[in-house]
Amino acid sequence: MSDNGNSKTRTDGEAEPLTYHVDGELVPADEASVAVNDRGFMYGDAAFETLRAYGGDLFRWGDHAERLANTCETLKLDHGLEDADLRAWIDETLAANDLEEAYVRLSITRGVQPGKLTPDPEVDPTVIVIAKPLPRGGRPDRGGEPRWDGPASLRTVDVRRPPENVMPSHLKTHNYLGGILARLELRGTDADEALLCDVEGNVAEGTTSNVFFVDDQALHTPSLDGPVLPGVTRQVVIELAREEGIPVDEGTFSPAEVREADEVFITNTTGEVWPVASVDGEPVGPSGGGGPFSEDSHELYPGGPVTRLLAHLFDDRIESEFY
Amino acid sequence: MSDNGNSKTRTDGEAEPLTYHVDGELVPADEASVAVNDRGFMYGDAAFETLRAYGGDLFRWGDHAERLANTCETLKLDHGLEDADLRAWIDETLAANDLEEAYVRLSITRGVQPGKLTPDPEVDPTVIVIAKPLPRGGRPDRGGEPRWDGPASLRTVDVRRPPENVMPSHLKTHNYLGGILARLELRGTDADEALLCDVEGNVAEGTTSNVFFVDDQALHTPSLDGPVLPGVTRQVVIELAREEGIPVDEGTFSPAEVREADEVFITNTTGEVWPVASVDGEPVGPSGGGGPFSEDSHELYPGGPVTRLLAHLFDDRIESEFY
Repeated sequence: MSDNGNSKTRTDGEAEPLTYHVDGELVPADEASVAVNDRGFMYGDAAFETLRAYGGDLFRWGDHAERLANTCETLKLDHGLEDADLRAWIDETLAANDLEEAYVRLSITRGVQPGKLTPDPEVDPTVIVIAKPLPRGGRPDRGGEPRWDGPASLRTVDVRRPPENVMPSHLKTHNYLGGILARLELRGTDADEALLCDVEGNVAEGTTSNVFFVDDQALHTPSLDGPVLPGVTRQVVIELAREEGIPVDEGTFSPAEVREADEVFITNTTGEVWPVASVDGEPVGPSGGGGPFSEDSHELYPGGPVTRLLAHLFDDRIESEFY
Repeated sequence: MSDNGNSKTRTDGEAEPLTYHVDGELVPADEASVAVNDRGFMYGDAAFETLRAYGGDLFRWGDHAERLANTCETLKLDHGLEDADLRAWIDETLAANDLEEAYVRLSITRGVQPGKLTPDPEVDPTVIVIAKPLPRGGRPDRGGEPRWDGPASLRTVDVRRPPENVMPSHLKTHNYLGGILARLELRGTDADEALLCDVEGNVAEGTTSNVFFVDDQALHTPSLDGPVLPGVTRQVVIELAREEGIPVDEGTFSPAEVREADEVFITNTTGEVWPVASVDGEPVGPSGGGGPFSEDSHELYPGGPVTRLLAHLFDDRIESEFY
């Protein structure tokens, strides 16, 4: 079976087909499809959320549901579904796949409508739930697998995040070519993630992540006043830092400020707190020689002290909420 | 059968299902689908062209094929298909539906790849061809049905076309939410098409059309130096005007210049030359009282004299090439 993401590996090593949820029904992943004249396909006219299940339960479902509702409101995609329905379909999908630790993607499209660009107010949405295994990672007492192959390398790219009057930054939609153009710029480099700036040249975010950096003053991250997706993990990390008494500065920053920081990390739902080892090929950290990523770095919690602290606090929060 | 665009009306008035072309095979339109993890669906990671067949043959196939190739090149979507293959699939689709006068939509997606945003260089594309009837329209000796319900009304919107470093303007992709946000702004108005400006506030284009206007100096249209899709019909109209000795000015214009023009029209593959009767609620034309759209306007060729002339020339060109 090719690696099309439609199967999971059983404990005996065999691939087992996954089950997805399409338009209210559980279907084998290999048969899960949408009509070619679904607006989600024709125009990317669809909202989505990437979620994570820990111990069979969804992390920050309320935040994801709220962001999804905000996206649909801006798109005037009046799908008529309750959050509880969506949640139930996700739970059914997790149960059908016998998944406790999982990646989940929930999409709502504007469905099939008469063949014109102007959306009809009457929406018969298409709802898709995809789930696949994603090990807990991190904590030694939970298997202790690293979450990633290692610290991330970031690289600034030429493509810019759209200004607010081109595409509101709170939208999370199937129009993802901006991120793809950014990732294409990384071809031939060792970079894991692209760092996008706004049209003025200030740092905005990664293609699928928010960015943080640390100096001797504070934990800094681009403000939501810029073209920055309001990441759920971003918000949790800000809360954890504040509770810990770490000053948090949401502001406007140049790429140079990120490059010259003592510590850099990125956040998203699947990667949680992911330390960054280099930006534009330059090692992160005060020593300039690998900085906090020395040979002594803990495999599960690499990075500088603030990054490690926040990763630990994040893990503790997950542990206390879900296990 | 609901109006999902999957059928055509036979001469006896019955709806007859259409046949589409999906990934190399002809399939009934109602069964035509793409996998939910096709990148064309997940991210809008797909190029497309809207084409038109006259008398069973494609209008300006070479221009469309070239624009499609340019889109795919920028997206690094190396589909490995020859133009001749694509053309053959379109011809098969037209033949399967017994269509001579038709709308055609050709899409090429990056297909299904392992579940990450970064595209794999190895592409197994998904190719979709949709066709449906589109009467010739226009010329009295070809049935003489009007191409549209009447002249168009345009309205400027707040959403802006992306700058070149956000999304290159020559790309024609399944990321079409910018146009959808623009059309949503028209809800509750009588407007048929949205007029989008660039981020500096200069006129760019309609959501699915290029815009032209006429004053006593020249035929004006926004230059391709701005965020303007290089429309195939736009180019034909420019050629026709030049051959006719009408000065053509590709430049930078304010919405006010369009509002105050003697004549305005928009162009695209399906609408050809579509006269505009009002911009932002103000009637187009020197009289201010309906201008060239008086009761005397010819039903098939409304609009001012330059618009009518170009529409006639366009029709003559089609006639001589295809019939």
